Amino acid sequence: MTTELSVRERALAAREASRALATATRGVKDAALHAMADALAKAETAVLEANADDVARAETAGTHAGLVDRLRLTPTRVEQMVDGLRALAGLADPVGDVVRGWTTAQGVRIQQVRVPFSVVGIIYEARPNVTADAAGIALKSGNAVLLRGSSSAAASNAAVVEALRAGVVDAGLPADVVQLVPGPREVTAELMAARGLVDVLIPRGGADLIETVVRNSVVPVIETGVGNCHLYVDAGADLETATAILLNAKVQRPSVCNAVETLLVHADAAADFLPTALARLAEAGVVLHVDERTRPHAGDLATVAVTEQDWATEYHALEIAVGVVDDLDAAIDHIRRWSTGHSETIVTDSTAAAGRFTAEIDAAAVLVNASSRFVDGGEFGFGAEIGISTQKLHARGPMALPEMTSTKYVITGTGQTRA
Amino acid sequence: MTTELSVRERALAAREASRALATATRGVKDAALHAMADALAKAETAVLEANADDVARAETAGTHAGLVDRLRLTPTRVEQMVDGLRALAGLADPVGDVVRGWTTAQGVRIQQVRVPFSVVGIIYEARPNVTADAAGIALKSGNAVLLRGSSSAAASNAAVVEALRAGVVDAGLPADVVQLVPGPREVTAELMAARGLVDVLIPRGGADLIETVVRNSVVPVIETGVGNCHLYVDAGADLETATAILLNAKVQRPSVCNAVETLLVHADAAADFLPTALARLAEAGVVLHVDERTRPHAGDLATVAVTEQDWATEYHALEIAVGVVDDLDAAIDHIRRWSTGHSETIVTDSTAAAGRFTAEIDAAAVLVNASSRFVDGGEFGFGAEIGISTQKLHARGPMALPEMTSTKYVITGTGQTRA
Repeated sequence: MTTELSVRERALAAREASRALATATRGVKDAALHAMADALAKAETAVLEANADDVARAETAGTHAGLVDRLRLTPTRVEQMVDGLRALAGLADPVGDVVRGWTTAQGVRIQQVRVPFSVVGIIYEARPNVTADAAGIALKSGNAVLLRGSSSAAASNAAVVEALRAGVVDAGLPADVVQLVPGPREVTAELMAARGLVDVLIPRGGADLIETVVRNSVVPVIETGVGNCHLYVDAGADLETATAILLNAKVQRPSVCNAVETLLVHADAAADFLPTALARLAEAGVVLHVDERTRPHAGDLATVAVTEQDWATEYHALEIAVGVVDDLDAAIDHIRRWSTGHSETIVTDSTAAAGRFTAEIDAAAVLVNASSRFVDGGEFGFGAEIGISTQKLHARGPMALPEMTSTKYVITGTGQTRA
Repeated sequence: MTTELSVRERALAAREASRALATATRGVKDAALHAMADALAKAETAVLEANADDVARAETAGTHAGLVDRLRLTPTRVEQMVDGLRALAGLADPVGDVVRGWTTAQGVRIQQVRVPFSVVGIIYEARPNVTADAAGIALKSGNAVLLRGSSSAAASNAAVVEALRAGVVDAGLPADVVQLVPGPREVTAELMAARGLVDVLIPRGGADLIETVVRNSVVPVIETGVGNCHLYVDAGADLETATAILLNAKVQRPSVCNAVETLLVHADAAADFLPTALARLAEAGVVLHVDERTRPHAGDLATVAVTEQDWATEYHALEIAVGVVDDLDAAIDHIRRWSTGHSETIVTDSTAAAGRFTAEIDAAAVLVNASSRFVDGGEFGFGAEIGISTQKLHARGPMALPEMTSTKYVITGTGQTRA
């Protein structure tokens, strides 16, 4: 039995280890990512065995099948984790990027340069693949990482982290740049209190987890991912385009944060658009929560009366709330009231409506005539994603490697003093 | 007697008012800044009378003379506030700047565009000039502002805000884009709890105020300004350069956050550098807190033995802590232990030492052969400054208009859906 280290001890070890990582070249970091991938591949059996224990424990505890599925690792999922680490080695290094630079009238040179945060904490739920993904992204961006996974995945996470640390050491970096933070619930509270030791906390998981971290942490937090996303079909919009975008955004992968949860239709488009659109949704198995103005266009389709609660709900499932609005202003008002500021879409042929919608809707992403499913680090071409920020400070929208850094001003003179 | 509005009511009014401001053109915002300046100039007598009341109240209460001086407005100080508003009108508008943009393989156009936060809260201490400065910077960056000044400046702040609001209305914008938040201490707590209504809080003032806000706010905070800044003189440094930078950084304006508080000298430079440097500091009236290795170089000069507490102290006064270190590593270790991450300086002729110092010191600004007094929005050429951020999230170093904005992805397609 080893004695558990406190969060403070782990954070201090991470800070010390981060010194070597912060000044490591891209070559060293990429070699470490490949070594982590190699070590994880080699540890596949151990990882799967540990995971089988976690899964058995969850099943004995009567855990919901969906959660057990998220917890479960397979050879394919381990391979994806390994491939993800290798892919990170192929991405550009954000550290050292000169964001801007200039020379003052006195000849002092000023450069704003990207630097790592130093120590990043990730608090996440049952998916053990997050362990490898987050460790890889942190390492590539020059940050030591404290991984606080859920207790249900404790054995899996421990096996993954043991392999990753072995890889890190093989590459000549200190093992403590990657640390798991095990222990009881109070440990999460300690992590949220570790201001000055941990530079930023990123919660990844459901709305409750994120809310808890945001409300209780004195360490700065980057909030990710609750998406109550809307699609507004304007008068005069191309209705085939609108239907294609609606089905893609609702049906293609309903469990994700960039899926559409509410459809709003301009009153003038309702009669032409809704009968077909609702039928297509129903065919795809989508439950229709409709308002009174929508219901007459639903014909024989089964519908449920929409409630206030529906407007606020991120279904994460094959369900949608549907409403008819008088005009663009009413659509904007509805979205301002219920949006979580993730991704909001208009389908329109009007440049004026597109301009107003993109200017007046306050969200991480506003889309014109494209599916909200594009709001994703992969689709953006970022190559890696730690989450989608729905806050306005530091990073908003898909967060990739540059968003995992801070900046520093490097100022060089030849003896200048201020007048 | 008017009924006091709650913080929630004010924040909701600010959010509503911010809609007009967020989409206002630069022309409208600049006209508003000039109208605010005009209205403030016209209200000079009323502002000075209100300020005289605040000053009399402070003096009756036996307030420290330095604090009374910071509270006091003069015709010159009012003129500076007026000029500051007009100067903001001359600066570029950050809102609408395209930070980056690209087109995906499917032909979807993505642009990352600067947008206002919406509602910004400023919590500040007795200087009433902050009222006009902060309101101007918020307006120019498209944000509604909630100004929480100190009760000691209540009358002055009320008079200034009354004038500013009149100017805003003259320019056709809603008055509630600028609001004062008066009332008892609990009001500050309400402001710190207004998550979702207030997008960011910026405390401006002493370390205690900043610490209180950082620890208690669930609204995201941008931390400004505590500066325990170090100057390290390397072996082989040009000693005249080192002396000039030392005097400038310590003596020119000791009360500010970018002044130097600790001098560290390489052991090999001590005998040549310290006797003259210490004498020049003493001549300038600087109290010398020296370690045992420095003392032999002080000759007849009066010195005080340095304590651990001194290494941690931001004197804000003509005092300095002085230590001799074995080498660059020892200097870096000392700075890593005691720095508040504001501005750290090396004077050196060695490119290797300069490279290591700038890479390994974790601060908003690292300087080579230049005075830390340059770390300032004005000296950087920003034209306006809301404060100097010492945190790593969102903004680090001098914060100007772009740092008062967030971004939004505007995504435009022609009907694309995700495969």
